[in-house]
Amino acid sequence: MHAGSGAPTALATGAAPPPLAPLPPGCSVGANGHLRCAGIDVLDLVARYGTPLYVMNEEVVRANCRAYREAFRAYPGAAVVAYAAKALFNLALAAVFAQEGLHLDVVSAGELHTALAAGFPPARIHFHGNNKSPDELESALDVGVARIIVDNFHELELLDSAARRRGTRQAVLLRVAPGIEAHTHEYIRTGSQDSKFGFDLASGQAFEAARAAGAARGLRYMGLHAHVGSQILDTRVVGPLVEAMLDLGAAIRHDAGLALGELNLGGGAGIRYAGDDATLPPAVLATAMADAVVAGCAARDLPLPVLSVEPGRSIVGEAGIALYTVGSTKRVPGFLPWVAVDGGMGDNIRPALYQAAYTVAAAGRMGEGPAERVQVVGRYCESGDFLARDVDLPRLQAGDVLAFFSAGAYQYPMASNYNRVPRPCLLLVSAGRSDVIVERESLADLVARDRLPPHLRARDAVGAAD
Amino acid sequence: MHAGSGAPTALATGAAPPPLAPLPPGCSVGANGHLRCAGIDVLDLVARYGTPLYVMNEEVVRANCRAYREAFRAYPGAAVVAYAAKALFNLALAAVFAQEGLHLDVVSAGELHTALAAGFPPARIHFHGNNKSPDELESALDVGVARIIVDNFHELELLDSAARRRGTRQAVLLRVAPGIEAHTHEYIRTGSQDSKFGFDLASGQAFEAARAAGAARGLRYMGLHAHVGSQILDTRVVGPLVEAMLDLGAAIRHDAGLALGELNLGGGAGIRYAGDDATLPPAVLATAMADAVVAGCAARDLPLPVLSVEPGRSIVGEAGIALYTVGSTKRVPGFLPWVAVDGGMGDNIRPALYQAAYTVAAAGRMGEGPAERVQVVGRYCESGDFLARDVDLPRLQAGDVLAFFSAGAYQYPMASNYNRVPRPCLLLVSAGRSDVIVERESLADLVARDRLPPHLRARDAVGAAD
Repeated sequence: MHAGSGAPTALATGAAPPPLAPLPPGCSVGANGHLRCAGIDVLDLVARYGTPLYVMNEEVVRANCRAYREAFRAYPGAAVVAYAAKALFNLALAAVFAQEGLHLDVVSAGELHTALAAGFPPARIHFHGNNKSPDELESALDVGVARIIVDNFHELELLDSAARRRGTRQAVLLRVAPGIEAHTHEYIRTGSQDSKFGFDLASGQAFEAARAAGAARGLRYMGLHAHVGSQILDTRVVGPLVEAMLDLGAAIRHDAGLALGELNLGGGAGIRYAGDDATLPPAVLATAMADAVVAGCAARDLPLPVLSVEPGRSIVGEAGIALYTVGSTKRVPGFLPWVAVDGGMGDNIRPALYQAAYTVAAAGRMGEGPAERVQVVGRYCESGDFLARDVDLPRLQAGDVLAFFSAGAYQYPMASNYNRVPRPCLLLVSAGRSDVIVERESLADLVARDRLPPHLRARDAVGAAD
Repeated sequence: MHAGSGAPTALATGAAPPPLAPLPPGCSVGANGHLRCAGIDVLDLVARYGTPLYVMNEEVVRANCRAYREAFRAYPGAAVVAYAAKALFNLALAAVFAQEGLHLDVVSAGELHTALAAGFPPARIHFHGNNKSPDELESALDVGVARIIVDNFHELELLDSAARRRGTRQAVLLRVAPGIEAHTHEYIRTGSQDSKFGFDLASGQAFEAARAAGAARGLRYMGLHAHVGSQILDTRVVGPLVEAMLDLGAAIRHDAGLALGELNLGGGAGIRYAGDDATLPPAVLATAMADAVVAGCAARDLPLPVLSVEPGRSIVGEAGIALYTVGSTKRVPGFLPWVAVDGGMGDNIRPALYQAAYTVAAAGRMGEGPAERVQVVGRYCESGDFLARDVDLPRLQAGDVLAFFSAGAYQYPMASNYNRVPRPCLLLVSAGRSDVIVERESLADLVARDRLPPHLRARDAVGAAD
């Protein structure tokens, strides 16, 4: 059931089935052998809404929010948990996070617009990004976001000017590139010195930025921010990161007279994808962070700053399931069968982009042990369109439904209309109830922004065939 | 100006500038040092339409269509040039291809819908895909497409049933996996035996498929199809491919009594991206194909089949330019500067996905030689969001416009709303005239399909802050 790593294919069907891969939180298996999510038979969801279908379990999202807020009560100072909208965001999720009392990390005018449209309070919004446009900075000032996390000197000047023109002072954190690398994929490793993000620590630029922010009449320096990577599975990086940031915060306080009011350590907690992945529970992360900050502040005689974190994937990742319908299967002697589903790289680019692995289950046949090892591929016209390189599954037929677990983060947000395929429907399910929160695109949607210039509308527009 | 490969950075500014990278077809440099496309100063386009901006040169697209049709006149039999819509497609381009007399290769209901909405004649449409849905096959039958390229046994049965229910016979080609590998990126190599596409040749499945198609009362076997990869830069693969396909076609004719009426050799001709790339001009490809087919048919005493090809990238790729505005630049001693633009992996995933390289120019300063080597990064919150790893450019400032050449293919079609950034505007330019052919997305568009379920609309939806 889970991504295989051992001997090849063709498992004996007479033997007792091996243990199933762990089910995602909030999921169970019904007496009919069907996967259930929030108490709902997912095949009923498929019958009603079609596939590809993304299903988010509202209670799991809420439980993760609460686990984060609860975990950071271990910190004796004030703590802020801000959801990183980039992982998955829409009006309904914005409302859920607002209700759960989370803050919000946005990185664009679009994320800000969505938050506001859902009634998310600006006083809990933090604005990020390595290249915020002048318009985006103006919008953030217009609505009065809580913090702008300033990434670079160009932005520092732009924001200072814009705030001074309004006669306001904007609260800012400074994003720091601490020269510390998380152990994760190159594309999602963001803390090293060789990074587009943040003020460089080693060269003294981060210190200079604080001094400049302190002197800027349009800015109010509140503290520091670092985010060292994504899908981090252990806390090894926390100690060195906190030490580096507190050293910097203490130097800024001592030499520039600016108090470290807030320390934001970013997000990045990893989740379970394939069967044997580790995870990094909020409590483990919070304890490591709290202990390091408390000890580090004591050692430097610093007051405790507000401690902020920005989980994204670890809030929504395991709360999501992607459902696909099997179409063709291609079998060639000497190769693993190719099982093709009705989605693929257009709704999930992660396997092609990050070589991401998944736990995959036959949603209507959860009681059956695996019968063969297959590769799950998509419907897009490209060899890079694979979803799972080798997974052990029952012998599948056209019409079977496959469930990809941990599909909540960084799939739908990166969905495209490649091959002009409409983007899927996104559901929110909760205690037997299902609601569409993002409608499936229609064929009409695909041409809604297309325009035919006058010279291409001529009567003779259609030329002669060969 | 072009992607560097030699010694590092910091070129002397006093010296004579090195020769410029070749300009894209249809481009020139004005007396003011600005890049011009179809006679239009691209900075005027930026002022009018904003950035990121995709600009397609209509005359270059048309010239490429004509070059293909002209080149295949070298073949003494009938030839068909079908544009592969997956490379870039919308209503306006559909009208252009219709006017130019091309056929069209579509791979989804969405591409078919777009073609029909632009008035493209179904009798020149070929329907592809490794996992066409039953609905898509029904749609193709409804509108009467010229050919359906059947990929696998599952589809063969589905299509036969659907056609028989209507009392029709659908003309089909069989997609073959010939076991021949083009020399290109793994993700866009599609001809090897280890491929999700097509009937396997080596195991005899392709032959069996032809026999089955010949016996199916709903199908009319017309011939064979193969496509061995994308961004192919030489004709080494043509000879072995044609030999394999003609061997198969001859065997099917001899043993199953089915004539090879058409041989479709797919697309895949490469284009120039970075400065020193080779290209594969239509005439070179056509001559290689025509010679191989003529000689191969003579050797096997076969009548000449219709020869079909499916160019995509080589029609639109070099006709497109992507324009971005520079925002922040980050400089750290010991590293190449990071120049951030207002687009990135959301509109062009190719650098992250395929490690694609580009020729990049400062569109307003075309007369200046390079001053330093930089990395061009995007605005998306991810380290994988780079656009060009190391390019030599003038010393850039915020507001400078960068032009990425050869941006016409496989960029806009794979664009996402990652970070909830609206997708760019796509222009068609021609002889001093510019027309929007795909409108820029608005912030309102980003939430247009979002729905707030009733239980999230409650008055108390916004929870307490920490």
